[in-house]
This record gives sequence, C-alpha cells and structure tokens, in this order.
Amino acid sequence: MKQRQLKKEGKVGYSFPRCNAFLIKPCLISLLVTVLFANVTAAQDRNSEMVKKIHEEALVNGKGYSMLEYLCKNIGHRLSGSPQAAAAVEWTRQQMIDLGFDTVYLQPVMVPKWVRGGKETGRIIGSNQGDIEANILSLGNSIGTGEKGVRAEVVEVKGIEELNKLGKKGVENKIVFFNRPFNPKFITTSDAYSDAVDQRVYGPSAAAALGAKAVIVRSMTLAIDDFPHTGTLVYKENVPKIPVVAISTKDANLLSATLKQGNKIQFYLENYCEMKDSVLSYNVIGELRGSQKPNEVMTVGGHLDSWDVGEGAHDDGTGCVQSIEVLRIFKTLGIKPKRTVRAVMFMNEENGGAGGRAYAKSALVNKEIHKVAIESDEGGFSPLGFSVNSSAAQFQTISSLKKYFEPYNIHTIKEGYSGADIEHLKPQGTAMIGYVPHDHRYFNIHHTANDTFDKVDPRELTLGAAAMASLIYLLDQKDDL
Amino acid sequence: MKQRQLKKEGKVGYSFPRCNAFLIKPCLISLLVTVLFANVTAAQDRNSEMVKKIHEEALVNGKGYSMLEYLCKNIGHRLSGSPQAAAAVEWTRQQMIDLGFDTVYLQPVMVPKWVRGGKETGRIIGSNQGDIEANILSLGNSIGTGEKGVRAEVVEVKGIEELNKLGKKGVENKIVFFNRPFNPKFITTSDAYSDAVDQRVYGPSAAAALGAKAVIVRSMTLAIDDFPHTGTLVYKENVPKIPVVAISTKDANLLSATLKQGNKIQFYLENYCEMKDSVLSYNVIGELRGSQKPNEVMTVGGHLDSWDVGEGAHDDGTGCVQSIEVLRIFKTLGIKPKRTVRAVMFMNEENGGAGGRAYAKSALVNKEIHKVAIESDEGGFSPLGFSVNSSAAQFQTISSLKKYFEPYNIHTIKEGYSGADIEHLKPQGTAMIGYVPHDHRYFNIHHTANDTFDKVDPRELTLGAAAMASLIYLLDQKDDL
Repeated sequence: MKQRQLKKEGKVGYSFPRCNAFLIKPCLISLLVTVLFANVTAAQDRNSEMVKKIHEEALVNGKGYSMLEYLCKNIGHRLSGSPQAAAAVEWTRQQMIDLGFDTVYLQPVMVPKWVRGGKETGRIIGSNQGDIEANILSLGNSIGTGEKGVRAEVVEVKGIEELNKLGKKGVENKIVFFNRPFNPKFITTSDAYSDAVDQRVYGPSAAAALGAKAVIVRSMTLAIDDFPHTGTLVYKENVPKIPVVAISTKDANLLSATLKQGNKIQFYLENYCEMKDSVLSYNVIGELRGSQKPNEVMTVGGHLDSWDVGEGAHDDGTGCVQSIEVLRIFKTLGIKPKRTVRAVMFMNEENGGAGGRAYAKSALVNKEIHKVAIESDEGGFSPLGFSVNSSAAQFQTISSLKKYFEPYNIHTIKEGYSGADIEHLKPQGTAMIGYVPHDHRYFNIHHTANDTFDKVDPRELTLGAAAMASLIYLLDQKDDL
Repeated sequence: MKQRQLKKEGKVGYSFPRCNAFLIKPCLISLLVTVLFANVTAAQDRNSEMVKKIHEEALVNGKGYSMLEYLCKNIGHRLSGSPQAAAAVEWTRQQMIDLGFDTVYLQPVMVPKWVRGGKETGRIIGSNQGDIEANILSLGNSIGTGEKGVRAEVVEVKGIEELNKLGKKGVENKIVFFNRPFNPKFITTSDAYSDAVDQRVYGPSAAAALGAKAVIVRSMTLAIDDFPHTGTLVYKENVPKIPVVAISTKDANLLSATLKQGNKIQFYLENYCEMKDSVLSYNVIGELRGSQKPNEVMTVGGHLDSWDVGEGAHDDGTGCVQSIEVLRIFKTLGIKPKRTVRAVMFMNEENGGAGGRAYAKSALVNKEIHKVAIESDEGGFSPLGFSVNSSAAQFQTISSLKKYFEPYNIHTIKEGYSGADIEHLKPQGTAMIGYVPHDHRYFNIHHTANDTFDKVDPRELTLGAAAMASLIYLLDQKDDL
C-alpha cells in the first residue's frame, strides 16, 4: 500500500532499498542502477520538455514566415552578384541585429556574376504546324548566342551514354536535346532529381566535345507544364563552351513529338547570358556565443542567393529564415547553448559554391571546432527527418535522438547527403546534417518563376525550424560529440 | 566453400542439415525452424514486392488525379440532394464500369436536402469606421433569417462554458459570437479542429437555449484570411432553431476588436437557407469479387457529397478517387483478392451521415461480413499513416504490417478515430481504419470556396491511394483477421 502511494507520488525510484549483510553488494549495485536510471530518465524528460517548448514557441510566435514574406516580396530573387543579393545580405544582417543575437557579421566572398542579358528565344522550326515558340530559360553559367542566334537540326537523346554512342557523326553541328524525364517511381522526388540531373550538369560539355552547337535540356521536374527550370551546368575544361537552355516539360514533349514528324526539324535559339568578372559578396552570420565551449560551433544554415527567376522562396529563402528562427527560438526561450550556435546565410550556392568554401576555410583559419552543421536546402515543407554525413560514432549519437522527434511525426534519421554549402566542412570532422522535408511538391517549382512565397505553408515551414532547433538543442546536450 | 556457394544462390535456408543420432531432436527442431523461417521470409518478400508494385503502378499510371480533375472541374461542388450530387453519382458509377470492376451498383439512401437560398449578408453596425460588411457563410442545416434579417447586439464568448456562465441575462435577444481560435500548439491541425469545433456543432443550440437570436462562429482554421468556413451544426431537440453563420478569421478578429470600442455594436444578419424535404440519393459501390471468401468484405471509401462552395476537392473528392484507384490498381496488377474488395462513395457525410448508416444497415441485412473498412476523409495529402478503431487483436494484426510501409516514409499506425461513414460498422466487429495524411494545409481550405482542384498535388494524392491499396492487399493475406 505504501509502495503504491510512493509510486503515485513518483518517488519510488529514489527510495533507499533496505539491505542486509548478505545482500550488501547486489544492493549497492541496485542502488547505483536506480540512481543512474533516475538521472537518465530525468534528463530525457528535460529534453522532451524542451523539444515541446521549442515546437510551441515556433508554432505560436514563429517569425520565419513573415521574414520570408519580406525576403520574397520586398527583395525577390537574388542571384549572386546582383543588387538584390546585396539587399538580401544587408536585410538579413539587420534582421539578426534586431533580434538581438550576440554577434552578427559579414564574411567576405568573391562570387561569380552571371547575367541573363536580354530576351531569350527558343523556336521549333519546320514542324507541320509551322514555327512554334517554346518556353525556354538559359541554364546558369551558360554562354549566350548573341544576336546571331544558333539554328540547327536537333538530335534527341535520353542521356550522355546514348549521346556518346551517336558519336561525332551524329552530333556535330547539331543541337543536342537531352530528354530523359524524371522517373516517377522514386518515392522521394530528390531521388528522381539525382537520377536525371547529370544531363543538365554534365550533358552540355559532353555534347560540345562531340561538336554540338548548343544544348536543350528537359526541365528537371515531374510536372508537365510551361515553366522551364534553370539550374547550374559545369563546363568541362578544354572543351568549347556552347549555349545551353532548359525547355519546359510540355514543350519538351512537343519537341520530341515534332521530331518524329520526319521533317528536318530545326531549333532556333537566341540568348544573351554572360559571365562577368567576379564581385565581392558575403556570407551573413549571426551567433549566440557558447556559455561553456564558445570555440565549439554548431551551425545551421541555408543559402541566401537564388536563381534570377521567381522569388527564391523554397530555394532557399525557407532555409535562411529557418536558420535565423533557430537562434530566435533559443534566445526567446532563454536557452544558453554550451557551444556557439550560428545561423549562416551562405552566398552563391546556386552557381559556384563560393560561400560554402569560404566558410569552411575561415573555420580552419580561425581554429573554430565545427562540431555540427545543419543545412536546410530542400524546401520549406513539413519535416521528414535528417540525412547525416558523419563518422559512424557521430551518426550513432545523432540517431539515438530519434525518440525525441517521434511525437512530431518525424521518424527518419538516415545516413546520406547533407548539403552543398556545409559539405566543405567534411575534412574538419564536422557531423554534417541535411534537413529533409517531404519533397513531393519541391521539383514542381524548383529553379522556376513559380518558386514564390505563396507556395510556402507557414506551418510546414515552422515545423522545419522547430525540428532544426530541437536537433541543435539535443546535440548541445551531448558532451561527447 | 560450398555453403558459401549455396548462400549465394539463396538456397541455404532450405539445405538439409547433417544429423547424427545424438542430435536428432535438436536437429529436427532446427529444421522446422529453418523451414518456418524460410516460409515467413518468403511471404514477407512477396508482400514487400507487391507493395512496391502497387506504389509503382500508382505513381506511373495513376488515374486518381485525372478523375479528380473531372469531378472538380466538370461537376464541382455537390451537396446532398443537389443536381451536382446526382451527376457525381452517375459519373462515378460510369467511371467504375469503364474500369471494368466486377460489379458496380447504387445503394439507395434518403438524404436531407438543405439549400443556401439567396445572397447572405453579415454587417457590423455602429463601429467607429461605420458599417462594415463581413465575410460570412451560413452553417449547413442552419435556418435562414428571411428578408427581415436579424439585427442585435453581439456578445463574444470563447466557448460554451463561458456562454453558460453569462446565463440568460447576458445572452437573451443577442447574437452570440463564438470566437475561440484554433490552438496553434497542436502538431496536427485535426487535433486543433477537434479542440475548437464544439462551438460550431453544439454552440448554436446552447446559445438558443439562453434566448440568443442568432449565432456567429469563428471559422475553423488557423489561416487568417477572408474565407468563411461552413460546416454542420446540430440543433438540439426542443430548443428553438436560430440562424447560424461562420465568419472569416480576419473578420472575426475585426469584429472582436470592434466590440472593444465600447460602442453598442450590433450585427445584421440576413440569409435564406432552408431544409427541404428529404430526397432519394445513392451510395455508389464498385467491387472486385473475392476469389476465396466472397462474403467477407474489405471496404475502401470516401464521401461523394461536399459542401456547396468550392469544388469538394480535398473534402472529399480525393478520398473517392483514391478508393476507386485502389480497385483499379488491383485489377491492373492482376491481384485477385481472397475477400471481396469494395470502393464505396458514401453520400451525405457532410450534413447527415445517411449514406454511412444505410451502408452498415445493408451489410447487416445482406449478412456480409465486413472484415475491414478504410476511409479517406482527411484530405488528399501525403501519407502519415493510419488510425485504427478496432479490437486489440485486430489492432495487433494491423500494426504488425508497419514494416511494409517504412520504405514509403509511413511510420504511423495508431489507435484512434477512423471515419464518419465507416464507424457505423463498429457493432459488426469490423476493423475500421482512417487514412491519415499530413494535414498542415487541410484546414486552410476545409469547407470553403478555396477547396479546389489546384490545391491537390498529384503525387501526394497518389501515394495515399498506394498506401490504402497496400494495406488492403496486406490485410487480405491475413486469414485470421
């Protein structure tokens, strides 16, 4: 009866067991286990309680959505080197100062300045229906055709392998049309993207090496619509640079069908993009200084630059405001992290990665010990979990935290890719973590004029920030990270 | 070496262990365990393989999205008893015939016919800013004011408890304004809905019992916008019926602020809704006949009726097309279910539940044994999991299937509410299962003019159908259900 009463008061775990001479050793062990267990349980309860507080603060008082609205609507898209990128740097800096972070500063980075130039034209010539204007958009870093344009026959391939089989004879002086669609069978669209994106990144130089005059790439999406999706390409050294455009999926299907008409279909391409001299820009950094180990750093970040269409909402305004929100939540709840916690707005993720490299280099120079870095760059959708690129021991530590996330319908902590900006920290032994949202809708709008503020749901965005803040909090409790 | 080779060929599980006299018994047990284990493993592999096929069929050839487009765009909203509801009945019937289901039939149901009547007006009178037109929408089943309208002072309360504390003195001849907002702290918005919706369902008669002239209810949503959310109310017997409208959250905030101005604020309400005589309608049923136990039934369903605004897209066009899609997938993949599998489009979920009751009654009369019923009525968003209302043994069977869903990022099989249409099967011992999607965006559009086709993502919709089909398939493998 008494035992019951004690249990009811929650004290039985701490009650001293009655020992006799024969049982003194097992009794001590039992005591030890009891005390240890009680401590572990109490720590777990504290952690669960704090994760709950973090979620409630985010859901009730979250500032991420209104910050994102400003960034998208008052600044808009912000390609590296553009005036808008400069505005975004200054605005996020002021934002973090206004939020009262301990330190806010700019980290200089030289970034490529690529410009789209004038109006871009893509035209299917010689179809049974006459000439057809196509929805196209130059890929980032592409050279332009200039006023003369490029007009040539089109050869359609499903990928680089098929291209190489055609050889110089089948490709020379033609426009190569990479038209392998996203594979809809993948359960996450990021897997479909990984499966198809080689055409966009490496296809152009593969085609140029065989004498192609230009390249058209099917947009990287499952959506069938009129929005072309830009994105970066990598020109291979010692291979001629040729103009490259993305074509909307509707028009990719149309072009493919037109090519089957048997006429000698040509494509006319005119664009004016150009790589200018590099310019000075910045990563924007805000931090809460660590109370016990200030030289150990836990970074949360997104990238501030975007493509020069749309508003850079899901890519990656959301990652930026979520990162700022992590620090705001800590400050508001009075969480004093043991280690320094940093929000980093990386510059130039889209077409160069200069910000990520500069950040990692600076960490080395300044002898900062980067324990953890989280990047949110897969859209501001509701949380699926985290993808971890780390040592086995670090992964074990991180995945041991899964239980704290289950009440929030987050069940995934897996090994895998983290993020383009933070991966430069790998040689420093940092546990690199990608925030992974449900991405079914991401590639509908990714790198298009359609990546706008209205596509972001405030709760989905907010729950992502809360998940990131919770993970940083929980990892900060781990001394042996 | 040989052992290795066998392992490579995948045959080691079946290889006969070499026994000697002393080891004969353990050897036999070991053999038994090996064979049993091999069987279990083979069955699991078959199941996993089929779940994969189901997902791929849905993702590659899914018809749900195009069916939904027709339902939303060519028929539109379809309140019970309306011509559109009749059109939806006929269209889904033809749809299932065209898909070649074994049997397609209509099940007669008498449904209430409630009509909105003429233009609805809500006006805040006497504010410092003059009169203000408010965005309002009558609740389903409400009576109307008629031409005279109702004009009265407004008393704001946060719920029925506060209302009752005011008593007759504080309420009589006034318009009661229920203004308790959704609580944003809940992790799922359906919990926030459950927490707030008593004001809408039971508030009106509670107010009428104290002499109120009419009721205004804050819309059931976290979104702050101009869209009023309708929904059903339940008039208590022997209490006068009074007119009831929902007000948009923006205008609820405005009305609340206006009431604090200290003037004698009044509200003018005019609406023309009316309950007519009941009319004949139908549940629409398509089935694949069970190959081994045709009298055992596994039902998947959604409701075909919707409110008379928007297009009934997420509520519940998505549940209907997902249910049809389950049977289409079975048929396309050549799955011959042991039990009869049925897609049921229930009629009249929104304002009466007549379809669900009729269906359960018919099952009893026809001595069908309903083993399982799945309802999808929480929106066509990406799958979170399933909520099960069943016996403990049934729940154990169902939750043992969790492992098959994990590759699809579905981790939740929990005990809880299933669905309004299927719950009438409870007395028949049916395992009732609600399909649970991620609902962050659901209550932004639920019961509003904004519940339209463009709010549905094809992949999210499709993955829900695949999850439902997978669950039906897996449960059909269980003989002891």
